[in-house]
Formats: sequence, structure tokens, C-alpha cells
Amino acid sequence: MTHLVNGLDDVVTEAVDAMVSASGGALARLDGYPDIKVVLRADWQRDRVALVSGGGAGHEPAHVGFVGRGLLTAAVSGEIFASPGVDAVLSAILAVTGEAGCLVVVKNYTGDRLNFGLAVERARGRGLDVRMVVVADDVALPEATQPRGLAGTLLVHKIAGALAERGASLDEVAAAAARVAGSVRSLGVSLSAVSIPGRAGNDRVAEGTVELGMGIHGEAGARTVPLDGVGDLVATMAATLTEALPDGPVALLVNDLGGLSGLETAVVLNDLLRTDLGRRAELLVGPAALMTSLAARGMSVTALPLDEELTRALQEEVAGHTAWPGARVPGEVTTRPLPDLGTQTWPASQHAPTRALLDAVCVALQAAQQDLDALDAQVGDGDTGSTFAVAARRVRAELDALPLLEPAALLGALSALLGSAMGGSSGVLGSIFFAAAGSSADTGAPIGQALSDGADAVRRTGGAEPGDRTLLDALVPATRVLRDGGTLGEAAHAAETGAVATAAMTTARAGRSAYVPSEHLRVQDPGAAAVALMVRAAADASA
Amino acid sequence: MTHLVNGLDDVVTEAVDAMVSASGGALARLDGYPDIKVVLRADWQRDRVALVSGGGAGHEPAHVGFVGRGLLTAAVSGEIFASPGVDAVLSAILAVTGEAGCLVVVKNYTGDRLNFGLAVERARGRGLDVRMVVVADDVALPEATQPRGLAGTLLVHKIAGALAERGASLDEVAAAAARVAGSVRSLGVSLSAVSIPGRAGNDRVAEGTVELGMGIHGEAGARTVPLDGVGDLVATMAATLTEALPDGPVALLVNDLGGLSGLETAVVLNDLLRTDLGRRAELLVGPAALMTSLAARGMSVTALPLDEELTRALQEEVAGHTAWPGARVPGEVTTRPLPDLGTQTWPASQHAPTRALLDAVCVALQAAQQDLDALDAQVGDGDTGSTFAVAARRVRAELDALPLLEPAALLGALSALLGSAMGGSSGVLGSIFFAAAGSSADTGAPIGQALSDGADAVRRTGGAEPGDRTLLDALVPATRVLRDGGTLGEAAHAAETGAVATAAMTTARAGRSAYVPSEHLRVQDPGAAAVALMVRAAADASA
Repeated sequence: MTHLVNGLDDVVTEAVDAMVSASGGALARLDGYPDIKVVLRADWQRDRVALVSGGGAGHEPAHVGFVGRGLLTAAVSGEIFASPGVDAVLSAILAVTGEAGCLVVVKNYTGDRLNFGLAVERARGRGLDVRMVVVADDVALPEATQPRGLAGTLLVHKIAGALAERGASLDEVAAAAARVAGSVRSLGVSLSAVSIPGRAGNDRVAEGTVELGMGIHGEAGARTVPLDGVGDLVATMAATLTEALPDGPVALLVNDLGGLSGLETAVVLNDLLRTDLGRRAELLVGPAALMTSLAARGMSVTALPLDEELTRALQEEVAGHTAWPGARVPGEVTTRPLPDLGTQTWPASQHAPTRALLDAVCVALQAAQQDLDALDAQVGDGDTGSTFAVAARRVRAELDALPLLEPAALLGALSALLGSAMGGSSGVLGSIFFAAAGSSADTGAPIGQALSDGADAVRRTGGAEPGDRTLLDALVPATRVLRDGGTLGEAAHAAETGAVATAAMTTARAGRSAYVPSEHLRVQDPGAAAVALMVRAAADASA
Repeated sequence: MTHLVNGLDDVVTEAVDAMVSASGGALARLDGYPDIKVVLRADWQRDRVALVSGGGAGHEPAHVGFVGRGLLTAAVSGEIFASPGVDAVLSAILAVTGEAGCLVVVKNYTGDRLNFGLAVERARGRGLDVRMVVVADDVALPEATQPRGLAGTLLVHKIAGALAERGASLDEVAAAAARVAGSVRSLGVSLSAVSIPGRAGNDRVAEGTVELGMGIHGEAGARTVPLDGVGDLVATMAATLTEALPDGPVALLVNDLGGLSGLETAVVLNDLLRTDLGRRAELLVGPAALMTSLAARGMSVTALPLDEELTRALQEEVAGHTAWPGARVPGEVTTRPLPDLGTQTWPASQHAPTRALLDAVCVALQAAQQDLDALDAQVGDGDTGSTFAVAARRVRAELDALPLLEPAALLGALSALLGSAMGGSSGVLGSIFFAAAGSSADTGAPIGQALSDGADAVRRTGGAEPGDRTLLDALVPATRVLRDGGTLGEAAHAAETGAVATAAMTTARAGRSAYVPSEHLRVQDPGAAAVALMVRAAADASA
């Protein structure tokens, strides 16, 4: 896997500098590169309890992204997945701790515990009032004597940060942090092993399986299970978390380990909110990439039992451009009625030859779905076959409801159907085609003329012409043949000739292929191929 | 690649429902599933200019994540990478447009242009005042007659949204949007092709190369170039953008296409801010995943020439829990002086046999780096060799500065060196080991006793015991041999025996291997192996 890094020696210092530069003056760093990578609030006055956290790099935005008013005072970063050294932690503590003292929040990993622990001891040796809280929120291995610290750590930051910002004492801040650390629970899942710059890859997780209980440093999960739908997976995770929680309201945090799409995390959230645990959620944080494992494809769910104090602390505003995404009250899906689109309707009527022709065209499109997708994958986004097949399935499902006996009405009905069901460029082009053809037929034009008028409307609206490597290269010649009194067989031949010719057009001037370098354009345009296939199916059905 | 989706038919509706549920009441959706996926502001009163945008799904958080006060009024989503149908767009327009009218913002893709364009025409046919602006910010193909719409679209949303929220007229909002659309420029780069649920994969982009000019639907880039460092890549992108921009201040938006790590986007930003274009940046948006291509590994840079009106509009607050990350004023890296750690120093002194022994141990560690990393990759995060090698390099570099003649001082100096330079668990364990051994030697203990005391300190602080599958399994027996008057050769034998025994310990109770299922623990503990290797090297050097 290719990584966007310049060199492993400087990757963390470069990243930290960027985060400080980008903070709009909210952050500063200690002048201790390369060993000491400490970021702190630029506006810090040592007038409240200081809050220090950190750990290895590779978890961004944690922890630098959580330095700000109402969150951390300082974050200490090590190298990728390696704890910072004790001098780095000690520097952070010394740089921010005043009379009010300092709370150090540590994820429960041996390295972090040792480095932060030693630094706390040394700071105490200098007379500073420093406490430490260790977060061990992982429930993946119930028998583990030392559960890992995961994204639940961020809820400790938020709650301790809110209290400290309000001016609470170190006793109060440390007590709240210990209470959160003692009750927050997390569980992770991973779709693949993490890829680490400069290290060999690992394809431990087989396609179609997931690792439950994965950590944030590429550690193998507690167990591998097949992925039988997100709903089942999320239900398993929620049930495992529930066993480790008391009854009552919770805050849920959904954390992207770095490499999931927004679509995927939303699907996860949708299922999570529908579990018993999800229905207990009075606050929701995320989904967002908060405590990542570089760009690992995986996520974690964190649950924190709520009371009034914690609810309030989680919802308090923070300042500075932090990565804290806010805590919201999740709710039912609110819907609003559809506006009246005033859709035209056409009374159903039967006409066996037309029905057979339409059905044959749709069957041919469904059969060609994979071939057309594969063709499109070479020049576009690989969905031409899928898009046409969606329309074909819908048209077949509606055959009984269509005005098969009335050509103008049928064309109008097909326009409406494709406009609402097909989507994509092809859907609207089809809708335009049939709408214009229907209007033409409605004024009395013969069917061949009407279809040719439809093709002209597609040219106008889409801004393309024959020769531009689009479906017009098949549609225009075929409809011209029909307009001029030719047979469907002749039209099919014209469409096929036009489609074949697109393979020699190495400059696409319209459609998505216009964005593809010409050396990729050595195959037929998939839209033109689909049109040719449809006209051929129509000719065969009516022969 | 495994995807977290339940089924392709429902993936978008599930995701949209989750985003609405999670909005804390800020969003609602039209009741038109599955064809019509429209999300709108729940608080919308039709009392200002409405702003509608959208496109295919797979670009989350765009566009649903940008619905909120001061941003979009409604977002229309199609299926993955396929435009919404015209009825969906028309429904959105009808649902939000009042007397003040509506601006529709469209990314320049044929499908979007057709669907949104037709819907705008139909809405106008109903007497509504609706305008459309098409964003075509891609500069990847300078000769393209129809440049693509990329992340620059989000700046149109933000600026038009700010004006509309202030109560500007449709003429004013549309003019500002057209001005931004006419001047914003973007360029994308991709490290791999996008993986789309339900479709065959594509490994078009070779390891170590990147595609410049990649789109947001998996389209092939304009050209493939080798990745010679992020600095060079970003400089090329900045130069290409600069050619398409007038002089003067700019806003920069750094967009993660979905699958980059936070560390990588920060490295990109660090290099970007140091280009000529970066130095012209008066505002910065991101880095963030804003206009994604599912979880594609890639990013884009957008530049917008700034004036006072645009600067103000970009910085105005938005409301509702949107994905807008704010626009900040980037600055130099602010540093603060390191606190005085009061580090102890030891005067250098020479002792050839000690120097030779230390050097031999370090050379052995450097030679074993890859083997130890590989061993660790099977049970942990694969960095044991790298971590020890960092320390070895540092110790060798400092040999002239060490107090080689004084055992207690040397142990103290090694503790300080490892504490600041090594990082990771091993670094602090080493630091604890040498610190405690040094303190012991300082009180007059023989070196064997001192080293054994060091091992005891490691046991106490780390909370582990021999038998827990850690480096103690080699360190404790070796130092006991030395304490009891044995030779280095005997100690090496004891360490090796202890390390070998760890391969049979299938339950790790401490260290990171504690999180690994026992079936993975069939090899030596890498820390124990490293200790054995060091004692053996010391024995060989002193033989």
C-alpha cells in the first residue's frame, strides 16, 4: 500500500507542525523536536486544572485534535504506535501545570502506563500536584487483566475538560475522570489489518470476515467471524457492550478507525440506533474518525452510562478548532410529506405485441448487466449495466400498469417511470427521450418520427452530438432509420454499426468518459452498446 | 475488499436515515423512499433564499452533512455514484422554495446537469424563481470542455449559504455563487482505485505511484506519476493550481477522499503550506473528509481567490451539527520553550573494553532489526526491532560522550539516553532498568547485583513477572546468573533458554501480546529474544 509520507523519521513532526499551523493560533508546540512532540493550548494561563494526555502517533486526530478550551490542555505524541518517552510527558506536565494541579489521562497500554507513570512520579518529585487516570474501556477480552484503552478515552477528556474549564478542583476533576474511566466500555471491529508506512503488509483478515475486538495498533482481534450483514454484527457488538454496562441511559460514541466510508459508518449507526442499546442512547458522538488506527478499515462503539453531570459535561461547548464533533440527542427519523409533483397518470391498457417487445428488451438488458458493467469499468464508473438493469426490472414489474395500447401515452408513462426509478445520466436521458417522443406522437407524428424527435431532445439537453462517443452514436442512426421508414432490423444494424464505431473514437467530448485519458478508450461506449442491444432485442421480438 | 453494508438496495436509505436520526433534530427527510432521498433543514421556514444541492451517494458527508443554517437548505441523494432522478430534485425544490426563490448548486457531471437541469426547468414551469449554478472546478485536464465538479462545490455552498442566511436576494446569492464557481479550482490525487460495494475491485494504480487528476467516482486519473515524496507531489499540485488562478490571497481546502489517515493528510498540509500557493493562504478549510469517493485513498486541494466578501462569508458561523469544519487563518508554527527538565549530566570518560562491548551489543541489535520486527509482527505491532535499533543507533552516536569508565554514571547516562531517545515500552523499561541499576551501583553494589536490581525494578513498574511472556523471561534469569557470579556466557545461555521458553507460553499476561489470542502465540516473545541477543553479543565481545 502506498502511503503519503515523506520519510519515517519526520512523519510525526511534520504532521504535528501542520496541526499547529492549521489551528488558527489556538495551538503551540514545545520547542523539543524531534524527541519531544508536545502540543498545548496557546492561550493557557495555568489558572485551572491542566489536563494532559497522549500516546503513540497514528491515532489522529487523537490526541492533538482534542487540545482546546474545554478539552485537553496538552497532548504528547510518540512515534507511530509507540508511546512518547518519559521526558516528553514530563515536559508537557511541567509546561502546563500551575497551582491547580494536573490530571494525566492514559490509555491502558504498557508503554503508555510506564512512560506517563514515570513522568507523573518525576513531576510529583518536583512538588507538583499531579494525578493519573488510566482508561481501560475495551471489553473484547472479558478475562483480560489489563483491558486496552480505546476511544472511550475521548469521553474522559471531554468530561474532565468541561469540569476543569468550569474551575473545578483537581479532586473533582480526577474523581469525575475516574468515574468515567471506570464505567466507559468500548468494542472494536476490523475489516482488514492496518497498513503501517515502512512495514510489510498483512492480509490476515479474509474477505467477507471481520475481526471482533480489534485494537488501535493493528493487534489481531479476539475472534474472527463471518460478516453476515451489518445488522447482525452491530447487534453482537451491542449485546457484548450491554453485558458490561449497568441499565439506564447511555452516551454512544461511534468511531471510524480511519478507513471506512461515510456511507458505511452511517449504515453502522442506523443499525446501532435500532438495537436495545441504541434505544438507550440519550447522547450520540460521531460517527467520526476520532481515535484512529492510521487508515484501518474498522470501527468501534463506545458506551458510557449517563447521569445529569456527565450529560451536561458532554454537551458543553468547546473552543478552538478541535476534532470534538459534539454530542447530540439522537431521535427518530423525522419525515415531511412529499410535495405534490402532479404526476400525470395513464390508464393501463393491453397490447400483446408491444408487451412482448418491451419484455424482450428488458430481458436482454438484464442478461447483459455484467457485460455492460465490465465494459463501463474500463472507461467510466462501471455501472452502465446495473443502471439499465434497474430500469429493466422496474419496467417489467409495471407491464400490467402501462398504457400499452396507446403509443403516445406509453411513451409518456415510460418517461415518468425512468425519471423516478432509473437514476443516473441514463435515467434522465431515457426520460427526456421518451417524453419528447411522447409529445411528438401526441401531435400525430408516426412512431419513427417521434423516436427521432426524442433522440434530438437528448442531443439538445445533454449538449452532445453523434461522434462524441456517447449513446447518441447508436441512438441517432437507429431512430433515423425508423423515421425514414426502415425496419427494426435495419435500425438494429445501424445502432450496432454506430456502437462499434465508438471504439475508434479516442476523444470523448461528453459523458463521464470525457474525463478519461484517450489511451483507455479502446472499447465501445457502454451506453451506445446498450442502445444497440435494445434495438436488436426489439427487432428480434417483432420478427 | 469487505464493506460494511447490509445490501446494495438499501445502503443509501439506511445511511440517510442514520444521518437524520443523528442530527439531533436539525434535519428531516421527505417521505419518498426509496426513489426520493431528500434531506432538509427541520427548522426551515421558506423565509429566505433556499439552497439545494446534491448528487450521487458515496461522497458523504456531502451533501447531507452540509445541510444546516448558513449552508444548504436541502440535499438530494442518488444511489452510489449515480445522480438522483429528476423527481427527487424537483421534490427538494418544491419542498423548500418560497417567495425568495431557490438556488440549485450542481457539480458538473452529465447526470447531475441533466437531472438537476430538468428539475429546475419543471420548477420554473410551476412559476417558482429557481436558478442553477454549475461548479466545474477540476483543473486536471486543461483541455476539457466540461471540467468536473469537485470539492470546490462546498465553498459555493458555504458562501451562498452565508449570504442567504443574512437575507440576501436570489440575485445576490446567485451572483456570489456564480463568482465562486467561476474562480474556484481543484486538483485531486489518488493512491488507489476506489472499491465500490458489490462491484469487482481494480488495482489499476501500482504501488509507489499515484494518479494525478483523479475524480470522485473512481475515474482514472489524467496521468500516473511515481510518488517521489509528498513534498514533490504537493508542489506539482500547487503549481498546476497556481497556473489556473489569478495572483492574490486564496482560501485552501484540503479534502480527504475518504481513506487517508489523519497523519497523511497532516503531512500533505505541512508541505502544502510551505509552497508558494500555501503562503498565499489566508484561510484554510480542513484537512477533512468532506467530498469523498467512498473510502478512496486520495485527496484533493481546492483554491479560491479571496476578497473581503468571500473571506467574511467563509468565516461565518453555521448552525446544526454539520460537517463544515470551519475556515481558519493558518499561521507559522508557534513554539514555546522546553521546560527545564534539570537533566543530570555525566562527564565523558574512556574505557576501551566497555566501549567495545556496548558497540557490539548495538551492532547486533541493528543487524537483527528486521528479524525482530518480523517476529513482533506475528504477536504485536511489528516494531520491536525498529525500536531497539533506534536506541542502538543513538547509543553508538553518543559513545564518545558517555562516562565509560564509571559504571554507576554509565548506567545513569544510558537511562537518560533511552528515556529520551528510544520511545515505546522498551525505551522506558530500558530507562527504568538502567536507572535502578545505576542507583544500585552508586550505593556500591557489584555490577551483577546492580543489574539484577534493575530487572527487579522493571518487574515492579511494569506489573509483570517471569512466565508472563515478556522480556523479563530473558532478563531475570540472565541478571540472576550475573548476580550470583556467573559469566556473561552463562548469562547469555540463561537468557536464550528463557527466550526460547516464551514460545511455549500461550497466555501472555502483560505487554501488548496480552491482547493477542493464544493461537497466535507460537513464537518467541520479541522482547525476550532481543534481550537474549544483547547478552549473547556482550558475551562474545568480552570473550
